Amino acid sequence: MDENWEVECFGFDYGSKHSTYELPAAKRIASYYGVPFSIIDLTEIGRHLSSNLLKSGGPIPEGHYKAENMKLTVVPCRNIIFLSILAGIAESKKADIIAIGIHQGDHAIYPDCRLEFFRQMDRAIRLGTDGKVSLYAPFLSTDKTGIVKWGLQHGVPYRLTRTCYKDQPEPCGKCGSCVERLEAFEKNGAKDKTD
Amino acid sequence: MDENWEVECFGFDYGSKHSTYELPAAKRIASYYGVPFSIIDLTEIGRHLSSNLLKSGGPIPEGHYKAENMKLTVVPCRNIIFLSILAGIAESKKADIIAIGIHQGDHAIYPDCRLEFFRQMDRAIRLGTDGKVSLYAPFLSTDKTGIVKWGLQHGVPYRLTRTCYKDQPEPCGKCGSCVERLEAFEKNGAKDKTD
Repeated sequence: MDENWEVECFGFDYGSKHSTYELPAAKRIASYYGVPFSIIDLTEIGRHLSSNLLKSGGPIPEGHYKAENMKLTVVPCRNIIFLSILAGIAESKKADIIAIGIHQGDHAIYPDCRLEFFRQMDRAIRLGTDGKVSLYAPFLSTDKTGIVKWGLQHGVPYRLTRTCYKDQPEPCGKCGSCVERLEAFEKNGAKDKTD
Repeated sequence: MDENWEVECFGFDYGSKHSTYELPAAKRIASYYGVPFSIIDLTEIGRHLSSNLLKSGGPIPEGHYKAENMKLTVVPCRNIIFLSILAGIAESKKADIIAIGIHQGDHAIYPDCRLEFFRQMDRAIRLGTDGKVSLYAPFLSTDKTGIVKWGLQHGVPYRLTRTCYKDQPEPCGKCGSCVERLEAFEKNGAKDKTD
């Protein structure tokens, strides 16, 4: 938005445990920045996928993001599916760039967040749209500490955000996603003002 | 199936004009071969896409497949979306190969049917699934004439199939898809036994 791009946001309801809290948070943030926000219902597709992140799966593991048990939270091909659908929408609306917030902290356990995957997916989408649409992942080479730093410098309203993987109103502070958020604020010497 | 693979079929309802006839035909064929068949409802996603192939779009153009006006039938990123969703389902079910029937006759107007696109998409999916899932397009290097030839040799029940793009029970014989089918049978010196 600082560079005067015309921005439109999309959220996906794929049946995750935290969708009840994540999607309204995404909507609040889009509204704070005054950009359109739509939710795309993928719950029917989500029923064919298996992951502990989903309502249909087992419990959310606790501990550090990089731990082996966090692999239970992988939703197979989630980002591939998101990017593909957004590519179709972008081409239909004559938008030329799709941005996604994948980052380095995800790389250890989520294969569809890694640089090499992202480069190939970008090439596939450029070819599949005759060069009309390409991908952008501004945080691909940084981790949550770098993201929080950037966000604090740019006045991101962190109090409106939601990170926890669990299906409960208050963030648990124990799942990999919460643990990394807390670490990121601490390493920036900042206080996380969310509840 | 000749090679004893365990096969499961999926069809997508993305709001195309011909879905009323195409999806029951797909179901008949899966049933003929005794393999499971599921329809995945993408009509909500289809509402964000623009194409004359969709119920929401203008009329289906008539003429030859390679003609400029057939570009109106491109559904942006349709195959990228299909392959991505199937990759997630395959990984969840521990299946390792996704097959799709894209072919050379599509290449002129559909960018997401071309060899170069397909190779990149295969790489993206291999990387995004940590090497667990890959793509297979047995007809990528042949056209409908070659496909019909192969099908006649292998006893494909062509009378159960449906090709037309239009929203009418009888195939129109005039849209690009019908024209190429008729040509393919003719070039094989065979009679198309569909209605």
